[in-house]
Amino acid sequence: MDVHTVIMAGGSGVRFWPQSRRHRPKQLLNIVGEKTMIRATVDRVIPLTPIDKIMIVTGVHHSEKIHKQIPEMPENSIVAEPVGRNTAPCVALAAYKLAKRDPEAVMVVLPADHLITKEEEFRSVLRDAAKLAADTGDLITFGIIPDRPETGYGYIQLGPMIAEFGGLKAHRVERFVEKPDLITAQSYLQHGDYLWNSGMFIWKVSSIVNALQRYLPVVSKAMESLTPFLDTPDEPKAIAEVYESLPDISIDYGVMERADNVLVVPVDVGWNDVGSWTSLQDVWNTDEEGNAIKGKFLSLNAKGCVVSSPQKLTALVGVEDLIVVDTPDAILVCRKDKAQDIKQLQQLLVKHGYQGLL
Amino acid sequence: MDVHTVIMAGGSGVRFWPQSRRHRPKQLLNIVGEKTMIRATVDRVIPLTPIDKIMIVTGVHHSEKIHKQIPEMPENSIVAEPVGRNTAPCVALAAYKLAKRDPEAVMVVLPADHLITKEEEFRSVLRDAAKLAADTGDLITFGIIPDRPETGYGYIQLGPMIAEFGGLKAHRVERFVEKPDLITAQSYLQHGDYLWNSGMFIWKVSSIVNALQRYLPVVSKAMESLTPFLDTPDEPKAIAEVYESLPDISIDYGVMERADNVLVVPVDVGWNDVGSWTSLQDVWNTDEEGNAIKGKFLSLNAKGCVVSSPQKLTALVGVEDLIVVDTPDAILVCRKDKAQDIKQLQQLLVKHGYQGLL
Repeated sequence: MDVHTVIMAGGSGVRFWPQSRRHRPKQLLNIVGEKTMIRATVDRVIPLTPIDKIMIVTGVHHSEKIHKQIPEMPENSIVAEPVGRNTAPCVALAAYKLAKRDPEAVMVVLPADHLITKEEEFRSVLRDAAKLAADTGDLITFGIIPDRPETGYGYIQLGPMIAEFGGLKAHRVERFVEKPDLITAQSYLQHGDYLWNSGMFIWKVSSIVNALQRYLPVVSKAMESLTPFLDTPDEPKAIAEVYESLPDISIDYGVMERADNVLVVPVDVGWNDVGSWTSLQDVWNTDEEGNAIKGKFLSLNAKGCVVSSPQKLTALVGVEDLIVVDTPDAILVCRKDKAQDIKQLQQLLVKHGYQGLL
Repeated sequence: MDVHTVIMAGGSGVRFWPQSRRHRPKQLLNIVGEKTMIRATVDRVIPLTPIDKIMIVTGVHHSEKIHKQIPEMPENSIVAEPVGRNTAPCVALAAYKLAKRDPEAVMVVLPADHLITKEEEFRSVLRDAAKLAADTGDLITFGIIPDRPETGYGYIQLGPMIAEFGGLKAHRVERFVEKPDLITAQSYLQHGDYLWNSGMFIWKVSSIVNALQRYLPVVSKAMESLTPFLDTPDEPKAIAEVYESLPDISIDYGVMERADNVLVVPVDVGWNDVGSWTSLQDVWNTDEEGNAIKGKFLSLNAKGCVVSSPQKLTALVGVEDLIVVDTPDAILVCRKDKAQDIKQLQQLLVKHGYQGLL
């Protein structure tokens, strides 16, 4: 059984503005540690799937920078999407590329920009899940065991356990649920059989191809028409011709919520989707007043702030629950509970003539 | 009658950190307009008292920078205090210097770092007040007619009107009062006979010398001992020898609150003491949400903020009543109602090894 890893690196990174920019999205930033998130994601799986069995799908404007980050990667393993079409077309493109190379392979799908602190445990459950996927032909996803009533994640409700494999317990899925409000999230945590939807998948290439044919025939037909050109010099041109007409749909909505052979495996791997500046309060070092800091910082009665100030000293006086980000050409000051509004700044930047800061 | 202007430029500027620094206090900044505050203060009185009748008293570390700002000023008209001793020694030093030059002169004393928008009116009332001071020998101060219940200023309660002169109405002082709380300030505003204490004074040199001899003999004796050296090459050395031992006392407390020949003249000259970042909300342009802005700024539901960001774009999301200041090496984010705490940052900067940012 060959295992391949597909890393989805299509994020546009507007939620980490001003550190992230149109041409420097989150996966290309070292928001969490020393490495960029894409480099960390690759390094994390290399002990499991060597570099020639890793594929990255990214946006056409980012593929060169991705290649600079992973220079040892074969060029035809970095696949450029001409436009973003959410995760279903991205997964499908990678699946059909792998199907042409090795139809019996198992395919691991990982986002490029998540944090996983328990790397050994992560590889261990990936290894077991890959075997389970090879054995059963099921579509497996990881559900993260929650430790707090997080309202920023989707949840998966566990159904009955139907297999134990190595250290894994594989369950049917009762249902996928959208990001809840706080009361609902608290009830999920108390209820105990709700997991965070991690966006990580493990399946046989043939299993996902079958599922795409059944649930997203428009996508699978487009990929079939592409297949003769994949891994040839004509690949980019062929992709460009079909991609724009593909539906913008997530693999969760398009396949996982519809298929009848979906399994969820509860895991505890120190996962964080690093989805917004706010998420860094769980990732960065914090001081006694709960300020999460990267850089130079002085606090006079500041509490619960997230501060990124790598160049110059940021002094906070009497403020609470703010996000403060300094970059060479722009500063952000945002209420933590308004972090979701940061993406709206994109339109404002254009409107006020600051296109250069997008 | 000769009128001389003495500008007190001893401010250390800690309240405008990080824009103001130990060696770049507020009077050397162009916080309000294009000019530095000291340059604007000099230019404002030049039509009344030509440059050779202006004297500036400042700290020894600032005299060179002051001279660069006012290069046309005779060198012996910029007097350097070796240490700050509040306004009484500063006023006394200037008074004794003028007494040696022209004992019959009228002396106008102005802070170096206040804003006055109605300049013509200001010079007009100064001119009249100087005549009144020459005629009566009284110690005159301007009281600013308040337009809001400001808690950041001291107040002067009007006594009976005892003279009208030109456009001026001169009153006895009922009492000087410290900065009030909001309820008290509101009652002052309603009461109608309370004025803001402007820190501007007009008196004959001989009148203030007499008052110093009577109410602050320690100071006047020191100045008498200095007199032979004033306006000679030995002046700095002589000042250095006595200054440290002088009491740290304000002219308000030391003389004005004790003397029996004090008059207050109500004026409306567009005055603002520019005492803190918060004061700039009444000085800078504001947007529709009451954000007072200098520089590049983007707001997404930000209200009532004071933003100084001359170099890079500052974007505020969902925040209210903050002070945000960007400088080349430090950023401040402070709650507006905690602006008085900014001076405490000085100790924190030292404690955390940021002496270079003092």
